[in-house]
Amino acid sequence: MSQSELKSSAAWIAVDWGTSNVRAWAMDDRANILDQVSSRLGMNAIAADAALGFEGVLIDLIGRWLPSGASDRMRVVICGMAGAKQGWLEAPYCSVPVRPDELASGAVRPVLSDQRIDVAILPGLKQVDDPDVMRGEETQLVGFMASQPGFDGWVCLPGTHSKWARVSGGAILGFKTYMSGEVFALLSGQSILRHSMDDRWDDATFEAAIRDASDAPTGFLHKLFTVRAGGLVGNANAANVAGAAVLSGAVIGSEIADVVGALDGNAQIALIGDGKLAGLYRKALAVHGFDAHAVDGQAITIAGLAAAHQAIRNA
Amino acid sequence: MSQSELKSSAAWIAVDWGTSNVRAWAMDDRANILDQVSSRLGMNAIAADAALGFEGVLIDLIGRWLPSGASDRMRVVICGMAGAKQGWLEAPYCSVPVRPDELASGAVRPVLSDQRIDVAILPGLKQVDDPDVMRGEETQLVGFMASQPGFDGWVCLPGTHSKWARVSGGAILGFKTYMSGEVFALLSGQSILRHSMDDRWDDATFEAAIRDASDAPTGFLHKLFTVRAGGLVGNANAANVAGAAVLSGAVIGSEIADVVGALDGNAQIALIGDGKLAGLYRKALAVHGFDAHAVDGQAITIAGLAAAHQAIRNA
Repeated sequence: MSQSELKSSAAWIAVDWGTSNVRAWAMDDRANILDQVSSRLGMNAIAADAALGFEGVLIDLIGRWLPSGASDRMRVVICGMAGAKQGWLEAPYCSVPVRPDELASGAVRPVLSDQRIDVAILPGLKQVDDPDVMRGEETQLVGFMASQPGFDGWVCLPGTHSKWARVSGGAILGFKTYMSGEVFALLSGQSILRHSMDDRWDDATFEAAIRDASDAPTGFLHKLFTVRAGGLVGNANAANVAGAAVLSGAVIGSEIADVVGALDGNAQIALIGDGKLAGLYRKALAVHGFDAHAVDGQAITIAGLAAAHQAIRNA
Repeated sequence: MSQSELKSSAAWIAVDWGTSNVRAWAMDDRANILDQVSSRLGMNAIAADAALGFEGVLIDLIGRWLPSGASDRMRVVICGMAGAKQGWLEAPYCSVPVRPDELASGAVRPVLSDQRIDVAILPGLKQVDDPDVMRGEETQLVGFMASQPGFDGWVCLPGTHSKWARVSGGAILGFKTYMSGEVFALLSGQSILRHSMDDRWDDATFEAAIRDASDAPTGFLHKLFTVRAGGLVGNANAANVAGAAVLSGAVIGSEIADVVGALDGNAQIALIGDGKLAGLYRKALAVHGFDAHAVDGQAITIAGLAAAHQAIRNA
């Protein structure tokens, strides 16, 4: 499709504005993607550079999709950190339990210099008891629920701050965040365990660590040190162990042990993402006898933004 | 005591050479401290600077204690990282179970340029099953055992890599390392939780986190995130919680929960150190009904080096 055709056909713009990246999609009225663009100007980069502002960054990113002549304002629907306190304009958290239309009605509208756009920033989600928050993932959950309206179970969103959400009856009932990704990154990159990380990987080692994390959950901080000590004690079995597989299994295993403790054996689990990390979560869940259904992360982000766009338009 | 009196009376020199510091003591023949000195030239600083060598750093540190005229060589007994593979000369680990005299007989002698000294570097300790290692703490354990020959119980050495050693019948039977100190430092200084650290402290919060760590051990990675989320959800109870007390309680509580699971209710526990960290361990153990006996860390280091000196002299 040529640029001129695209310009005439984009009906609205979907944006996922994260901590370290921003991605935007030009959408038509039937939720098809016409074009996409991304940059490293996430919330942190904008906060760190006084010369940058959210509106200017957005216009630079999506300007080529905006009509040049007089026209209705282009609706831009944004999820993620643009709505954080340190973001563009704070979109206060909605509380669980919540339904998708309630989330959309919590969108906020920043004052704009550019008259060609109309921006809605979606709220994050909070849980007051067992304090927890998310920003961005709630929109993925909405997109997931739109694609599987009858889903009754848990949705896992692995990542820096891994999330598990309980979804039932068309609502998000509650959720739980685990610092697994950040803890793994700190330990593998900056702790003494960095000396024990290499390219070796072994599924059986990973799966054994997943089981250990469940059988001996208080042993977590000791298990970490065995990654280092294994290479020093002259125990050939221990020295030949892939350190990254033990560390990864200990961290993901701790999270999974906590979650499966709250599940019955027939629980449905949907796993967002199809990359390497989601593959590890799938293996970890299989150790506990659960078969997780994998769902594409970007597709549900866009579906969630499309659902919000529709709810805002119909409001 | 004047410098000349000291020179004539120092009988041997005790050295604790750690990763980031080195401390030395001029000792008389009855294990009294005549003088002491320390510097930041631990193993890492020497490894990072090609102009530095262990022998030169040692002579700079203790030179003023060495006799100027012809005399027997001064015995220098060293524990800690000087004996690591990346240290001065590797002193291979001894295996548990081990008795103090076996440890002393594992000392190694580096080739020296300076004819005034005679250096013995003590070995570390390893455990092959449930892989684990220590370097330096084994000498503290020897010093502790010299002061309490009949001790039968567990000795806790809190720190970056916290150690718990089983001591009975005059031997070290086994031990377990927990990465508690390093994990706390990374999380409080470099993770998203750094925004939730402040000067507030609350013992009841710390003790509640100690109990949580034992009651819900798989919840560790989630509990960490509540430190962050508590300040964001508008729950006054959660927002007013001292983040450092929760984080500290979660980390130390995980370690303590693992240890007390292996103890009977009458177990003796000795806690090395009398600073703030040892105080937290004492409180955490009290939550589980254990009364730990505090022991001065420097005193037992010197006592351990003195025991090794005597064993080497008598060998």
